[in-house]
Parts: sequence; structure tokens; C-alpha cells
Amino acid sequence: MELAPSPLARPFPEMPEIAGMTLRSVRAGYKDWDRADLTLVELDEGTSVAGVFTQSACASSEVEIGRASVAQGLARALVVNAGNSNAFTGYRGREAVERIIAKVAQHFNCPTEQVFVSSTGVIGVPLPVDIANAGLDAAFEAAPCSWEAATHAIGTTDTFPKAARASAKIGGKRIELCGIIKGSGMIAPDMATMLGYIFTDSAIAPGLLQQMLERANARTFSCITVDGDTSTSDTVLAFATGRADHPVLTTFEDPGADAFFAALEDVCRQLAQLVVRDGEGASKFIEIRVAGAASDNSARRIALAIANSPLVKTAIAGEDANWGRVVMAVGKAGEPADRDKLSIGFGGHWAARNGQPLADFDERPLAEHLKGEEIFVEVDLGIGAGRAVVWTCDLTHGYIEINADYRS
Amino acid sequence: MELAPSPLARPFPEMPEIAGMTLRSVRAGYKDWDRADLTLVELDEGTSVAGVFTQSACASSEVEIGRASVAQGLARALVVNAGNSNAFTGYRGREAVERIIAKVAQHFNCPTEQVFVSSTGVIGVPLPVDIANAGLDAAFEAAPCSWEAATHAIGTTDTFPKAARASAKIGGKRIELCGIIKGSGMIAPDMATMLGYIFTDSAIAPGLLQQMLERANARTFSCITVDGDTSTSDTVLAFATGRADHPVLTTFEDPGADAFFAALEDVCRQLAQLVVRDGEGASKFIEIRVAGAASDNSARRIALAIANSPLVKTAIAGEDANWGRVVMAVGKAGEPADRDKLSIGFGGHWAARNGQPLADFDERPLAEHLKGEEIFVEVDLGIGAGRAVVWTCDLTHGYIEINADYRS
Repeated sequence: MELAPSPLARPFPEMPEIAGMTLRSVRAGYKDWDRADLTLVELDEGTSVAGVFTQSACASSEVEIGRASVAQGLARALVVNAGNSNAFTGYRGREAVERIIAKVAQHFNCPTEQVFVSSTGVIGVPLPVDIANAGLDAAFEAAPCSWEAATHAIGTTDTFPKAARASAKIGGKRIELCGIIKGSGMIAPDMATMLGYIFTDSAIAPGLLQQMLERANARTFSCITVDGDTSTSDTVLAFATGRADHPVLTTFEDPGADAFFAALEDVCRQLAQLVVRDGEGASKFIEIRVAGAASDNSARRIALAIANSPLVKTAIAGEDANWGRVVMAVGKAGEPADRDKLSIGFGGHWAARNGQPLADFDERPLAEHLKGEEIFVEVDLGIGAGRAVVWTCDLTHGYIEINADYRS
Repeated sequence: MELAPSPLARPFPEMPEIAGMTLRSVRAGYKDWDRADLTLVELDEGTSVAGVFTQSACASSEVEIGRASVAQGLARALVVNAGNSNAFTGYRGREAVERIIAKVAQHFNCPTEQVFVSSTGVIGVPLPVDIANAGLDAAFEAAPCSWEAATHAIGTTDTFPKAARASAKIGGKRIELCGIIKGSGMIAPDMATMLGYIFTDSAIAPGLLQQMLERANARTFSCITVDGDTSTSDTVLAFATGRADHPVLTTFEDPGADAFFAALEDVCRQLAQLVVRDGEGASKFIEIRVAGAASDNSARRIALAIANSPLVKTAIAGEDANWGRVVMAVGKAGEPADRDKLSIGFGGHWAARNGQPLADFDERPLAEHLKGEEIFVEVDLGIGAGRAVVWTCDLTHGYIEINADYRS
């Protein structure tokens, strides 16, 4: 199925080169299509790596192996296969990943723990090793490609290539961060999500990079949902080649660490929001702000209950300021709430305060706001200081069209 | 919006009269429509009552008052308003319910605790008391109506009237149970659900009736979902007029209590399944059987994660045996699972066993099964003895159509 670009798409940004890494994409042929579907990223020796992965109880072998390898902190190569997730394929799937890793490790003459593999696509079909091998051989010989070409090559049902950049100054030196991501459906991060890769020339010790990625993840990837369906393959990896000329960062207290973390969180938030903008069938980008909850965690659960409610999402698709459905979603969240202290608004206009509709409620400004492309839903529980922000998209006919016949 | 009857609709059953009760329905005019929307059920003095209600933190005043009144065990009248749920309407909504109760209690010369009120429809608009009063005056004078007319009158987005019956023998006497229900969207029972009413001429002490209703509810209404959205107004009430000529049942050990419970559970299951058959936009009725889980409760949570997954529901709408999405849903459920012991099938045909696709997998019988109207999804966790059965429907364009402009 050829999909038109999401109406919420953003143009591909200008992305600088990152010293210490090279991108290559080739057509391995995991599906019968005429596009690149195998991406190989070569990283300088000594590149730090950090990663967060799906919490799914049915995670793929790629995720299992990647989680173990991240612990040793160094990366030399990344392989991304598009068109087949290799998830739930038993020992045959695991063998396929191990053979890819062995081949790449031999090529770069590095330990197997420094080779990372991700696969995305249909679940339940073992990755064909012969196709992967031929693809890798071609990739070893291929010319370097652009960020945009590599971003296309890692996508599946994505309707536009998604990337983000940021920079920071560390000890007077400018460092760059570039991130690319794929994801459109089966998006409901549970501490980690989708396939996302962030590259920087900064010099960061693996332990600190891991802490920073986890902290940024909790505020960005873990705060988006398209359909509430958590994937078996979600992976976000961060690579720091260390080619920038500044002292290695090892703790949050080091000069420049704050600036680097701010830039990392910025890239993560941009990438996370781009995934929502490419949510399957999306016509509206929705930001849900919950305040006054019992705790931040409680606020996040309530925000996700709203973001995952099909009735809220279809109302917004229909440009209907049906705030009663937001009440319903707060009520079902299973979190502390007091109906008579609850306030709900859209786009800066309250519809209901303290458990009842406003006496002089004028629906017109809300209706006007709902016609826009970016929708803000505001909820104040009125019982505490807990806050959260979550991003999602609406639920439209497009989602049904895409998912009622993706595999066929 | 006029909706065509669900393709999964069932004909209205033959329903016997229940001694000790009278149904009346009139047009109060809660919306600008030409149909009855206020139903009054008169019950003989001494009628036992039991009830289960939504666990929503934002429950309506009707639910709050009903929950308190059920505790005293007796009912003389039931009023059902359709077109306005009166939920999230603050003190004005509560006053409206209290004034309806006071008026009906005066008419029947009974304590206010013996009058039950339910309201269903849009959230956030206080129930207009003048319309309710005029409607009640008309209902007091109206001629009795049929089961089918009353079932129509309590509906909102329902596309067909839903009712069920059963009978049992207690001490050689035949007793009857009749149930009616409304509900189509915002269906994700959390211990209780929707508006459902069950009437019997049997003689049952209120305490026992309450225990039986809770037990039946856990196996029936609590095992269905249309969209994962739990309503603010869910209510199921059971009334026993005691007109049947048998000794009053007071414990599960009394002769005939087993037979009565079986009949009650039968009616509850029929009613619950009818709600799924009228699920908004439904084209397939889906039964999800989970076995081999760590516990029954764990099995139910996994079954609900599958039943609420938009990706599973759209795949079934598209008649696609995409069992990988069932793997995803099991993985995200947050319950004990071992990927390498998991087996998944459709309609009695396994697609994957013990964590991988069958080597000699023949998709044809599964594809054939998916073309039917009743779909069976089977999951075996392979780690314990926990079991659950859950019913749901698929997710189609119809759901989007109905919910993107319900309120307007």
C-alpha cells in the first residue's frame, strides 16, 4: 500500500555530518519492493553506546541481544533491517541475528558485543539469512549515503522520513547531535519505543550516556502513544563517537553535561513528536497536559488514558469539543481523582471547572481551536502537584485503512 | 445519525410477563427526537434489588445514589432516562436526580431509597428537571408497554433492542428471568457495565441476590469490551418480585439456588454478548480464550489486552490472520508470559506453538475462519493453569463514523 505523506509531516531538516561515523543503505530485498531496506552504520573505534528497549514480554532476539550488548558500553556498527521484525521466530530468528552479528564483527575486526542489530516489519517470519548476508556484502562495498536516504531505508509504514538535530557547547567546543527514527503504528512506549538512533561526535562515557538517555526517554519517547499497542522491537540507541575535541564527560556534574543533556532531550522530544505526526491515519497532533494530580506518575497515567481513549481520539478527529469523553477517560484511569475538583479545557479555554460545566460556557472558541491541526487538551485534577505532558494523534478512517490490510 | 442495524444483530426474543412488575415508556423529549425516552418500571412492594456499578472515579449522581440505595435491598420503582447521562453535572445534576426520586416516591408512597434512576447519553449537560417532571406525569398515566418497546426506549446509539430470558425450577415451581440492556460504545466494564436490568418473579433475599449478581457479573459483563472506554454511568440492576410460589432463597445452599444462579448467569452472558454484537461499527463477534496463564486474573488481563488492541481488532476487520499482533498484545499486557512457551491460534487452528511459527503452517483454514462472522482467538501461555474468556468486536470504519460526530 502506497501512503500519502501525513498532513502533519515536517520537512527533513538540514543535518550536519557527525565525525566518526558513516551511513550506508542498500536493497537487501526483505520484501518485494524497489527501495533500500538494509542500513549499515560504521562507527569509529571507542564509540560509546547507550540504549533503551521495549518492556514487552515477547521482545525480539534483536532486543534481547542488544540489551545485553549495551551493558559493555562500546559500539562499532549498527545494522537496521526493514520489512521483517524477526520477532517471535524462536531459535531460527535468534540464529539469523547471531549470524549477522558474526559477519559484521569479522568485517570490522571487532568483538561481537559491539555490533547492534534492529529489525522492523511483520512479526513471526524468521529473517532470511541468505538475503541478509548478500545485503551486508553489498553494504560493505557501498558508497556512503545521506541522512535522508538512511532514514528512508529504516522506515516501513512511515509516510515521511523523520529526523532531528541539536547542538551544544562543551568547554567552548560546539558538538552536534543527529537523530533519525522510524515508527507510525504499534506505538505505545513502555520505557522505550520504536527504532530510533541518535548520533553525536561528543565524548561521553557509556555509563553517563545511558543515564542521560534513560532520563530523556522518560520525558519524551515514554510520553507518546499512537494506538496504545506496545511493539515487540522498540529500541532507541545513542552513539557518541568522541571525535569532538573536549574532555570526556563522565558525570552530570561535569562542565557541559547540562548543555549536552538539554540537547539530547531536545532531539529525543523532536523525534518522539515526529513519530506522533506520522501516527497511522493522523490528521491532528494532540498535546495533553495534566496538572494537579496526586503525583507526576499518576498524571502521566491519566494523560495516557486520555491519549489512548478511542472515544477522545475520534471526537478530536471529528473536531468535536466533546470534553465529556475526557471526563470518562480520567474516570477510568484507575488513579486518584475527585470528580468535583476536576477541570477540563481545550486550547486555553475551560469547558468545565470543579466538576461541572461552566455556567456561561461559550463553545465557540473551543470549536475554533478544534478546527486547527495542533490540539491542546488541558486537565486539572485539583488534588495535588503532579504534572505530565503526553503527545498523541487522532483516530481516523486512515488508521483502519492502513491496519485492516497491512500484511496482505 | 440514523444507524443501520448491526450485521451481528439478533432478533428480539419471546419474553414472558414477570408477575409483580409493569413497564411504561413515554416521550419526555430529552432530545429533539420522535421516540420514547423515559421508562418507568413499577415493582410490587417487597421486591428485592441487587446492583453492580461502574468503578469510574467520575461516576454520575445516579450511580452514587443507586449504589447507596441498593444496600437497603428493596425496590418499588425504576426510572431510565435516555439522551442525557447527567454525568459530570455537579450539584445541578444531583438535584435533578433527587427531585425525580422524590416525585416517584411520593406517587408510589414509598421510601426514596426504593426508587432507582439511570440516565444515559451525552456527558456534561444537567438533566432538565422540567422535562423529567412532565415525562413522569405522562408515565404515571400511560398504558403498560411491551418488553420490546421499553428496550427501545432505554437505548441511545444502540442499533437493535437487546434482551434475554431464562427460566429455572425452584422447589418444582418454574420461575422466569427477563433482562434488557442498552450499550454499544464506551464499553469496557470494570466490575460493572452499561445499563442492564434483570427482572424475575423468583423470591430471593436481597443479600443473596447481590452475591449472585456480583458472581455472574465477574464472568459476563466484566468480560466484554468494545473500545476499552469505561463509562461514567454503567449500571446493572436485578429485581426479584417474589411472586413465584416457592420458599424465599437466602443462601447458595438453599434448594433451587444453583438453578437460579445458572439462569441468572445465562441471562447476564446473553445480555453481555448482545452488547458486543451491537458494538459500534462491529462486523465480527470475537471470542478470546486464554489458557495456561499464571492465574485466572492474569489470563483475563491478557485477554483484555488482546481485546482492546486496535491492531488486533483492525486485522480481524480486514480478515487477516495476523497472529503477530496477538503476540504483541500478550507482550504488552504486563502479565507473566514466556515468549518461548506461547502458542496462538484462530478457530481451532494453531498458527504458532512454543514461541515460533509452525514449520508446516497452512494459513488457508485460518483465512477461511477469519471470513466468518464469529471469530475465535486462542492463546496458550504454557506457564500455569489460569484461564479466561473475553468477548469483543472488531474495529471498523463504522466506529470512526459513529464517534467522530455523535454529539453533533
